[in-house]
Amino acid sequence: MMQRSISIVEVGARDGLQNEPGVFTTDNKVALISRVLASGVRRLEVASFVNPKRVPQMADAEAVVAALPELAGISYIGLVLNMKGAERALATRVHELGAVVVASDTFGRKNQGQTIAEGIAEAARILAAARAAKRTAQVTISAAFGCPFEGEVPAARVISIAQAMADAGAAEIALADTIGAAVPSQVEDLVGDIRAALPGLPLRAHFHNTRNTGIANAYAAARTGVSTLDASLGGIGGCPFAPKATGNIPTEDLIYMLERSGFATSVNLEALISASRWLEETLGRAVPGLVSKAGIFPKPQSQAA
Amino acid sequence: MMQRSISIVEVGARDGLQNEPGVFTTDNKVALISRVLASGVRRLEVASFVNPKRVPQMADAEAVVAALPELAGISYIGLVLNMKGAERALATRVHELGAVVVASDTFGRKNQGQTIAEGIAEAARILAAARAAKRTAQVTISAAFGCPFEGEVPAARVISIAQAMADAGAAEIALADTIGAAVPSQVEDLVGDIRAALPGLPLRAHFHNTRNTGIANAYAAARTGVSTLDASLGGIGGCPFAPKATGNIPTEDLIYMLERSGFATSVNLEALISASRWLEETLGRAVPGLVSKAGIFPKPQSQAA
Repeated sequence: MMQRSISIVEVGARDGLQNEPGVFTTDNKVALISRVLASGVRRLEVASFVNPKRVPQMADAEAVVAALPELAGISYIGLVLNMKGAERALATRVHELGAVVVASDTFGRKNQGQTIAEGIAEAARILAAARAAKRTAQVTISAAFGCPFEGEVPAARVISIAQAMADAGAAEIALADTIGAAVPSQVEDLVGDIRAALPGLPLRAHFHNTRNTGIANAYAAARTGVSTLDASLGGIGGCPFAPKATGNIPTEDLIYMLERSGFATSVNLEALISASRWLEETLGRAVPGLVSKAGIFPKPQSQAA
Repeated sequence: MMQRSISIVEVGARDGLQNEPGVFTTDNKVALISRVLASGVRRLEVASFVNPKRVPQMADAEAVVAALPELAGISYIGLVLNMKGAERALATRVHELGAVVVASDTFGRKNQGQTIAEGIAEAARILAAARAAKRTAQVTISAAFGCPFEGEVPAARVISIAQAMADAGAAEIALADTIGAAVPSQVEDLVGDIRAALPGLPLRAHFHNTRNTGIANAYAAARTGVSTLDASLGGIGGCPFAPKATGNIPTEDLIYMLERSGFATSVNLEALISASRWLEETLGRAVPGLVSKAGIFPKPQSQAA
């Protein structure tokens, strides 16, 4: 296989911790982000600027961003669901805004009080505000592979949302399997369709391992031309032994699979595994990631006898 | 995607329970097999005819086979590592013998006291004995994607073992990722190489989810032309939260991925999920499989309101 590069967006400090029952301290969030930075990851979703009454885990968004190290070549992403969030994010030093359009009227209304059309309009305003503030902004299409209320989501609908957001100036489109229902053939088909509709626009994909297909979907996305994949350290975001588990794909398992498959990620897997072990100690429980338990294969030079 | 068929071999009663610390009763093994049969799986590895001193979990191999239901169109497989095991298996009514050649001298010596050459010679004797007894016999090449002692296993070595076993009359060759180290690009490459070397010979693949790549590898194998995949109900065979976890891929998660990807399996996923729940109750702990917790997507008609 030809060597290809894949970029990683670490979402543990946002999507991961957002679903943690306890509230992770600001210091621990900054420590998590710093440890992932040390492994070589260059883009990180560091906070969500949402209503702290709805998501108390993200109430310290501004404090987290203020405490992050200033480093060259790094992009800190703030997730924003509406203009109020965008204004808060733009008042911090995040480099990039991530807007979200839910590809389902029912799910969109329940999750963020917006139909698809309202989501597209609000995301366009967020893109414009970011542009005015000279920051990058991209759009994630959530529930792109299935809706918990409506079932299958037609590919044509996702393509049309992507087209609208590209027209509104999104720097990147992400396809998110929010409920972890996707399978690899579906990923290949949808990524192929979006690439054909929007040639040249960078694509990102975001998978959850809810039904054990997350790493398979990530590989399918990588080989079909996605340039960036989201993942969370340890796979946090849900407990695999709880009903309706919703963990992200574990960053360390993703890096193992990608690097051994011939994709260059510029991430040091040993550093990531040590960050994952720190996270387990800090959370006081095992995380879903498996490579940190089984070890790297083949054994790295640094561990040779 | 074109609709293609993929067959399943359920290995829970052998590879799964072989790694269980407790000894599952004969009745429970027969119940597990019967429940998987009821879901539509047609081929099952039901026992291993190994030295009961080395693997006490398999000491009741003969009793398990004697208690299995007689059904048309079903193949019960007995795993055998040497001629002594083959003689025991042929004295039962298993339909099929599964021999094993380890693709590593070091691992082969430690695991079954055989070099590669000795393994090939013994497997050829097993194939001949099965033929004389008018039973089907196939060969699994274990450690085909990596050895815990030697590291990388050259594809050329695996191809040459497969060639030798095909020449000796194997009805099928299986590639086993015994230590769960494989990644999908490696699976695509090795399956492609073996298909090119042995056109027309049915191929099977056997994956463990040790490093979270099991379902990705299964998809890669299915799309590259393997006709059969091994899996264990619930993914038993190791605990994902234990160091060096070695569970098989969960049958129910595999069926979810394959069916939703357009592969026909003739297996009823709802029946399999209910079997997996029975297994959890019987083992008294959660199993690694995820679809049984998250539910099928989209919701089956039978569960519609």
